[in-house]
Amino acid sequence: LLAVNPAVQLSYLVSETFAEQNVAAVYPHLSNVVQHSFASVDIEQLAWSSDVVFLALPHNKSAVIAKQLLDYSCRVIDLSADFRLNDSALYQEWYQHPAPSAELLEQAVYGLPEIGLREKIASAKLIANPGCYATASILGVAPLLHNQCLELEQQPLIIDAKSGISCAGRSLSLASHFCEAMDNFSAYQVGGIHRHTPEIEQELGKLAHKSVQIQFTPHLIPTPRGLLASVYCRLSGSYSLAQIEQMYREYYARCYFIRISATHQRPGIKTVIGSNFCDISLYLDPRTNYLVVICAIDNLLKGAAGQALQNMNLMFGLPEWSGLQASSSYP
Amino acid sequence: LLAVNPAVQLSYLVSETFAEQNVAAVYPHLSNVVQHSFASVDIEQLAWSSDVVFLALPHNKSAVIAKQLLDYSCRVIDLSADFRLNDSALYQEWYQHPAPSAELLEQAVYGLPEIGLREKIASAKLIANPGCYATASILGVAPLLHNQCLELEQQPLIIDAKSGISCAGRSLSLASHFCEAMDNFSAYQVGGIHRHTPEIEQELGKLAHKSVQIQFTPHLIPTPRGLLASVYCRLSGSYSLAQIEQMYREYYARCYFIRISATHQRPGIKTVIGSNFCDISLYLDPRTNYLVVICAIDNLLKGAAGQALQNMNLMFGLPEWSGLQASSSYP
Amino acid sequence: LLAVNPAVQLSYLVSETFAEQNVAAVYPHLSNVVQHSFASVDIEQLAWSSDVVFLALPHNKSAVIAKQLLDYSCRVIDLSADFRLNDSALYQEWYQHPAPSAELLEQAVYGLPEIGLREKIASAKLIANPGCYATASILGVAPLLHNQCLELEQQPLIIDAKSGISCAGRSLSLASHFCEAMDNFSAYQVGGIHRHTPEIEQELGKLAHKSVQIQFTPHLIPTPRGLLASVYCRLSGSYSLAQIEQMYREYYARCYFIRISATHQRPGIKTVIGSNFCDISLYLDPRTNYLVVICAIDNLLKGAAGQALQNMNLMFGLPEWSGLQASSSYP
Amino acid sequence: LLAVNPAVQLSYLVSETFAEQNVAAVYPHLSNVVQHSFASVDIEQLAWSSDVVFLALPHNKSAVIAKQLLDYSCRVIDLSADFRLNDSALYQEWYQHPAPSAELLEQAVYGLPEIGLREKIASAKLIANPGCYATASILGVAPLLHNQCLELEQQPLIIDAKSGISCAGRSLSLASHFCEAMDNFSAYQVGGIHRHTPEIEQELGKLAHKSVQIQFTPHLIPTPRGLLASVYCRLSGSYSLAQIEQMYREYYARCYFIRISATHQRPGIKTVIGSNFCDISLYLDPRTNYLVVICAIDNLLKGAAGQALQNMNLMFGLPEWSGLQASSSYP
Repeated sequence: LLAVNPAVQLSYLVSETFAEQNVAAVYPHLSNVVQHSFASVDIEQLAWSSDVVFLALPHNKSAVIAKQLLDYSCRVIDLSADFRLNDSALYQEWYQHPAPSAELLEQAVYGLPEIGLREKIASAKLIANPGCYATASILGVAPLLHNQCLELEQQPLIIDAKSGISCAGRSLSLASHFCEAMDNFSAYQVGGIHRHTPEIEQELGKLAHKSVQIQFTPHLIPTPRGLLASVYCRLSGSYSLAQIEQMYREYYARCYFIRISATHQRPGIKTVIGSNFCDISLYLDPRTNYLVVICAIDNLLKGAAGQALQNMNLMFGLPEWSGLQASSSYP
Repeated sequence: LLAVNPAVQLSYLVSETFAEQNVAAVYPHLSNVVQHSFASVDIEQLAWSSDVVFLALPHNKSAVIAKQLLDYSCRVIDLSADFRLNDSALYQEWYQHPAPSAELLEQAVYGLPEIGLREKIASAKLIANPGCYATASILGVAPLLHNQCLELEQQPLIIDAKSGISCAGRSLSLASHFCEAMDNFSAYQVGGIHRHTPEIEQELGKLAHKSVQIQFTPHLIPTPRGLLASVYCRLSGSYSLAQIEQMYREYYARCYFIRISATHQRPGIKTVIGSNFCDISLYLDPRTNYLVVICAIDNLLKGAAGQALQNMNLMFGLPEWSGLQASSSYP
Repeated sequence: LLAVNPAVQLSYLVSETFAEQNVAAVYPHLSNVVQHSFASVDIEQLAWSSDVVFLALPHNKSAVIAKQLLDYSCRVIDLSADFRLNDSALYQEWYQHPAPSAELLEQAVYGLPEIGLREKIASAKLIANPGCYATASILGVAPLLHNQCLELEQQPLIIDAKSGISCAGRSLSLASHFCEAMDNFSAYQVGGIHRHTPEIEQELGKLAHKSVQIQFTPHLIPTPRGLLASVYCRLSGSYSLAQIEQMYREYYARCYFIRISATHQRPGIKTVIGSNFCDISLYLDPRTNYLVVICAIDNLLKGAAGQALQNMNLMFGLPEWSGLQASSSYP
Repeated sequence: LLAVNPAVQLSYLVSETFAEQNVAAVYPHLSNVVQHSFASVDIEQLAWSSDVVFLALPHNKSAVIAKQLLDYSCRVIDLSADFRLNDSALYQEWYQHPAPSAELLEQAVYGLPEIGLREKIASAKLIANPGCYATASILGVAPLLHNQCLELEQQPLIIDAKSGISCAGRSLSLASHFCEAMDNFSAYQVGGIHRHTPEIEQELGKLAHKSVQIQFTPHLIPTPRGLLASVYCRLSGSYSLAQIEQMYREYYARCYFIRISATHQRPGIKTVIGSNFCDISLYLDPRTNYLVVICAIDNLLKGAAGQALQNMNLMFGLPEWSGLQASSSYP
């Protein structure tokens, strides 16, 4: 995304694993596109030569580097989980590691522009780029919480989410061996133990101005990318589908990347893969008074790198969609 | 399944579409395996030469043929929806067509042996073979309903189900075009409108001895076969996972095809594809007191043809697993 | 590609099938990206409002429309086969239909810039955009023919090609039903009967300055897009791999989209899907003195739409890669 | 295959990696099917309690164990490459390791029944079970070589083969990571360096009674299993397709698992996956006088385990298809 973006000059690509290797040798699809070699980590040089640094590191590791860069007044967009949770104790509980300093957590802005965070992001020094499951889950129900339409007292909000296998990263494991994952569809970290759980609950709670509990189950789709969240919403009152659709359209009025539909017969990931769009489809069941929300994103774009670039655009006064105009690479 | 089953002699393969054509010409994978040609429909001949007839016809059409065969005292295993709903009005509502006669509906036995129906099936003249989604959904929670463990008053039981694309049959549509379905994952008939809904509610209601409402959403996995249902169960009391597991083991004590696990890290369809097994995995979330049940079957075997053969075995006093011993064709 | 290209203003999107329908309603992935509705065909209006028209029509149909547009002095890039064959009799033989007029055939330029056709394309009024198989096959061996390195007397040049299923288009057939194509890999039109055969032979013949015969077999990969051709080249003399690699680098010296490797361990389509690149990998077998060439493209980009846009860029004096800078959407 | 085979009693399942672990814990799809735990290696016990041992070990390792078992008069079916090459020097050259003793090589019978080896296999003590690529390649052209129909003087026989990813085994590598292999199609070991090359040349040479050279290129299909070989045969004389088809039918007259077609429009792996069949399709190109043979097998069945069981059946006087009657698990 950055290499072909005319608004961006790529100064450094840093990698410990591939230090000194040509980028195109490691990723042949970037041959003729990226001329750089991977550099090893040199914080000072990195900070002096960059307006912003994107960190795609394991949690814990990210916080350390981010702090050093911020000390050099370099802005940071962090794709790890290190700055997503405001509550240090919650971080400790879910990541079994002390959280970054309170000062840093204070400084971090959750990088989901569409839930009213554009201005904060624009002036942020440190962005906590949201998790892919969190992005889809929160965008799927934010208007309902903002408008106090959900009955949340006696049961958790049920989020059944499915992601392509790239969400597990590039490291090797039997679970991501082709022959295991292909023609398979599996659930994992079932029973409320996935680490995006507290992140989602935190942001939904802010939107609802009260505590929100979720029952979140991730699944793996036998496809490289794409993410679909099916959210089961018990409405607190009587609404027509048209009213709810209108509510969504108003809430997301300024949001180019959000596309809302109440008529989609087969909402799926195909329409968003390769793009930064988030497609939200709405279904009201009059039998149960439940609203079923189907929310689709590309886990690697709106769920990660695309959202990071969108945040960069906001931070540097560029149009939000700059470098993100590609539509889905259908078919 | 029937062609290589030593307990079965295949007398007729009937097809209107392919009448007079060699089976192996239509389905080349059956070359050298099935020598038959497809015959056109001749009810009398069919009835006289067969102990049992399997009907794989569209709804409405099936009921007509079944009645004729039953009049000749031929036993029938019907894979359509025609005899699944006991309530004629419900059938009319969901299928927009008058139901079969009350007499026939009375006679039909729901062909899901594991929920206490073995004896009824053994003596049945007419089997209503369950739908694939219904099989997984019902098997996934039957022990909980039988033991009155669910809180069902204020919210529907949420069933988020995913199936391979063979569930949509062999007819042509843009939705099942390879380029649309591949690398896609989509929801369909969202909002409580899928026709397996009343079938599931009916059978769960019988198990619970009270009315049960579900919120059922089907999705399509980009894989030919396999079905996974994620069921979100609000427990009515305080149970340990061990207690629940024990409850499941007891309820399914005589059931060869049911495999229960409370430890499966990644419950998926891969372990059941190509077999008649139903794999049930149990997860208790202490934060919410919800039990999440993951239930996997092969939609074409335990969800259709395998279950039909299992029913045939029961009807003719054969071992339940006769001709169904293949394990999953891993990988 | 055109909708997000700042150098292009999209005046009309024409479709008989979808006339008057909103583009985004037919192709939901283009929602928010394309605002147009499909217009019905009005040649005069089309010609007056457009500098160039892209035709993506069935053969025979394309020639008729192209002629009308050319009569209005509108330039045409034709993605059908109508103008690819210079020999009318050959067209008649392979397409069972009379060829376009000799005058039109004369005017048409074969739109494969990298085989020395850039200047002709720049001044062309009518481009015959190459077939996807032809593009990969010709680019794979052009330097060898240009340099007279192949022994072609006693056997055909063997081209074993494999394409993603989008090469068969969007129309419905059992062969492109998901359940037939998935987990399958099949050959089709085996035995020298595929229509790209004469097109490839024609262009290779021009490069070799003598008649070239090929044995071409297409196969279908269970993936939406991507095309890989394995070409078996009997060398006419003794060459080192380094010499051959050098020959390729010189021949394709000015060609941004051609990437050559003699070291690629696993040459595949993954590196080119979503891009306009053509990746050529070279392997010399000293046992047989055969050069095996593996040539990969995206059948929908370098094999169709991307190449058409590349031709447009040349026709209008734009940089060849304008609007085609995206790298492969890995993974 | 063995666990559900009534003719077989499974005495030991041996694994160093998984010693003492329950089979069903390692392979959950075998739960309720296999009750055994993996045993560690004890040659004596193994030999005494078994009529035949199947070895699925890395090359070099296999030869050592096989020798010990044979010394105990236990028959061995070896799935490694150790006993496939008759020429010790060739083994050394391609496997960089000394070959097993000449005495053992002498004893080993190549386990491809359909090329006239049934009697030898029936009385063998040691079977060298063929490689998957070798099985498809040899079966595809054996009748032509047997009948001296091929022109082999001036060019190699070109075999372009494609296999599902299970052919690379279960060990972890970036190449078999789902996100690398999915939506990809790649060639590997191009240029005549794949180790099945000498095995194929050896067996084809025996059939032709002269030296045969091949140009063999393997590719990976993004599917777990299935193997398709496209073989390009230059005919030495003038034959009609009917004559050739007849030649194949005669040569394979007694062979249940060989299915021959000269009319197949789309020969593919789908018809054989999950079965022990080998589907051969024949195409004659009158323009070039080449016969193109498309040969499909399941690489894990007819290409490995199924063929091993077929060999066992022959060794113990069982019907050749015993335990191998399943047709392809279509779709």
